Amino acid sequence: MKRIVFDVLNNDGGIVNAVYAALTFKSKNKDYELALVGDKKIIVDTINSSSFSLTEDDFIIIDSSDLVHIDNNPRDVLKRSSSMLDTFKYLKENDFDAILSSGDSGALLTLSTLLIKRLPNVVRPAFMPILPTLVEDKNTLLLDAGANIETSPEYLNSWAIVATEYYKLIFNKENPTVGLLNIGTEEYKGSANIKEAFSKLKDNKKISFYGFIEPKNAIAGDVDIILAEGQSGNIFLKTLESSFLGFGKLLKSIIHKNIKTKIGGLLLKKDLKKFKERFDYRNVGGAFIIGLDKIVVKAHGGSDEIAFENALNQIKFLLDKENFINNIAKNLEGGGDEIK
Amino acid sequence: MKRIVFDVLNNDGGIVNAVYAALTFKSKNKDYELALVGDKKIIVDTINSSSFSLTEDDFIIIDSSDLVHIDNNPRDVLKRSSSMLDTFKYLKENDFDAILSSGDSGALLTLSTLLIKRLPNVVRPAFMPILPTLVEDKNTLLLDAGANIETSPEYLNSWAIVATEYYKLIFNKENPTVGLLNIGTEEYKGSANIKEAFSKLKDNKKISFYGFIEPKNAIAGDVDIILAEGQSGNIFLKTLESSFLGFGKLLKSIIHKNIKTKIGGLLLKKDLKKFKERFDYRNVGGAFIIGLDKIVVKAHGGSDEIAFENALNQIKFLLDKENFINNIAKNLEGGGDEIK
Repeated sequence: MKRIVFDVLNNDGGIVNAVYAALTFKSKNKDYELALVGDKKIIVDTINSSSFSLTEDDFIIIDSSDLVHIDNNPRDVLKRSSSMLDTFKYLKENDFDAILSSGDSGALLTLSTLLIKRLPNVVRPAFMPILPTLVEDKNTLLLDAGANIETSPEYLNSWAIVATEYYKLIFNKENPTVGLLNIGTEEYKGSANIKEAFSKLKDNKKISFYGFIEPKNAIAGDVDIILAEGQSGNIFLKTLESSFLGFGKLLKSIIHKNIKTKIGGLLLKKDLKKFKERFDYRNVGGAFIIGLDKIVVKAHGGSDEIAFENALNQIKFLLDKENFINNIAKNLEGGGDEIK
Repeated sequence: MKRIVFDVLNNDGGIVNAVYAALTFKSKNKDYELALVGDKKIIVDTINSSSFSLTEDDFIIIDSSDLVHIDNNPRDVLKRSSSMLDTFKYLKENDFDAILSSGDSGALLTLSTLLIKRLPNVVRPAFMPILPTLVEDKNTLLLDAGANIETSPEYLNSWAIVATEYYKLIFNKENPTVGLLNIGTEEYKGSANIKEAFSKLKDNKKISFYGFIEPKNAIAGDVDIILAEGQSGNIFLKTLESSFLGFGKLLKSIIHKNIKTKIGGLLLKKDLKKFKERFDYRNVGGAFIIGLDKIVVKAHGGSDEIAFENALNQIKFLLDKENFINNIAKNLEGGGDEIK
């Protein structure tokens, strides 16, 4: 039996969306054990008032009503009571397989770093969302998207190995390519750190290294895995997200300008909607925190029931693969197959 | 008399666009001396075959036919003959006031750094483009957009002073706000370097400091000046540019899908065109290289005649302001007015 701890407290839409997702998931996956961490009364009421034939006894419920937050020092999350902290404690004490939370990324990363064992030769975990590209049906993995301020060549090299295994499984593609995000594609460009990472990656037999990439290559889908120093990855991700939202808002205001433009908008509506859905990062699923010997997924703060259910399925997909984490560990230790 | 050296060689559209822009500019600004650096025969032929009543004697023409390029080491630009190198040499030997070039940014920065005197307390020049925002008619200045790999708090602090003076003059606004681009807006976020810059900027009486900003604030126009470490500024700029181009291309393919969508597109055409022009970075003018005791402007590689003329006018605007550079120098030395 596979077992997931689900922090249901930390999301913009309240607990109910998360609990409904848990109900849907559990009704389809009886062989999964779900521990729900959050306000017990609301969780139980939601279960009882739902149309599912499940009861509170079908879940483990951990009563926890404090929302995680960081004031000044991320490490304070260890000292202050929160549903997220209780989620990690429960995982540890009961050796569960995975965590899902929609809470503060910084807190989630801190707790992942401090409370979950890392894979061999991984010094720090990385934050890895799935991103759409300009090529239809082609998604990429971006890491590190901001978990780490200082990102050594060794970190980047180990993350490339982990991300390669994730990509192979999730997108069913052998030898996914890894591009290293830089301020230019010429080998003489960039910091000493990124140049050193470049030569380590070039020599890494476990990955298919593409070389330096710029944001345009990342957006165009020229590579499968966008490897980045934490700060660059974070700025890249947030700029992409904000520019998409911003351009969408402007497009909307153009369409609403007058009768003529409104008709024009109506004629394009169906296709624009598809376009919007494709680039809405909430639709591509949760972000992974990788480099750990457990699966940790961060759902979007604004997740609805569908988004939470997708995130649970995303976890299931990895857990259902026999020895997924063990195989990554083997690769990190120098065993496993080389890339062709 | 104000004097500009114009490297006409390095642009995607050939020399002709640049020479036409010089002709238009000179015919409207007789009090400006223009030195044109490039293939002399083409320059003279273009002047003679044009409908302008100007002749080659109205310009200084420096024959130079090698295109600048960098192989492995940016410093090689000093050793290898190029129109850009000749442009800098001419400026130095004849004490001209400004340089305009559309050539390789890296080469332009290297030559600016090595051959032009820096303003007091400025250790390195910065690359500063003008960016549109989601707010109509509101532009921002971004610096450093990639001239520097390592960006110390001192650099950022001096650039903030220079950018403030540019913003005040160009956009006619007292006390423009300066935001520092970071991976989060909370004071505890980011590298040691950016936190130290934060406290320096907070204490800087010459600028109006807004605090940390994220890409969404920069795009929304929440601040007038986006101050960034070189790598982050570069990734931000390139992501914004590529996502705009990418989304535009996708929008176009949506419109071209079928008859219905084509009609929709026609009804929106006028407004979409305005939108496109606003976010096309080629239209907002050249980028400045700042921190120097001369004006250096980088025109877009794909500049047409209008874009080059705009860039020349951009230079004229600064040169026509009495003592613009001297006033910045005074501020950098601690003199001049404090911000209100």
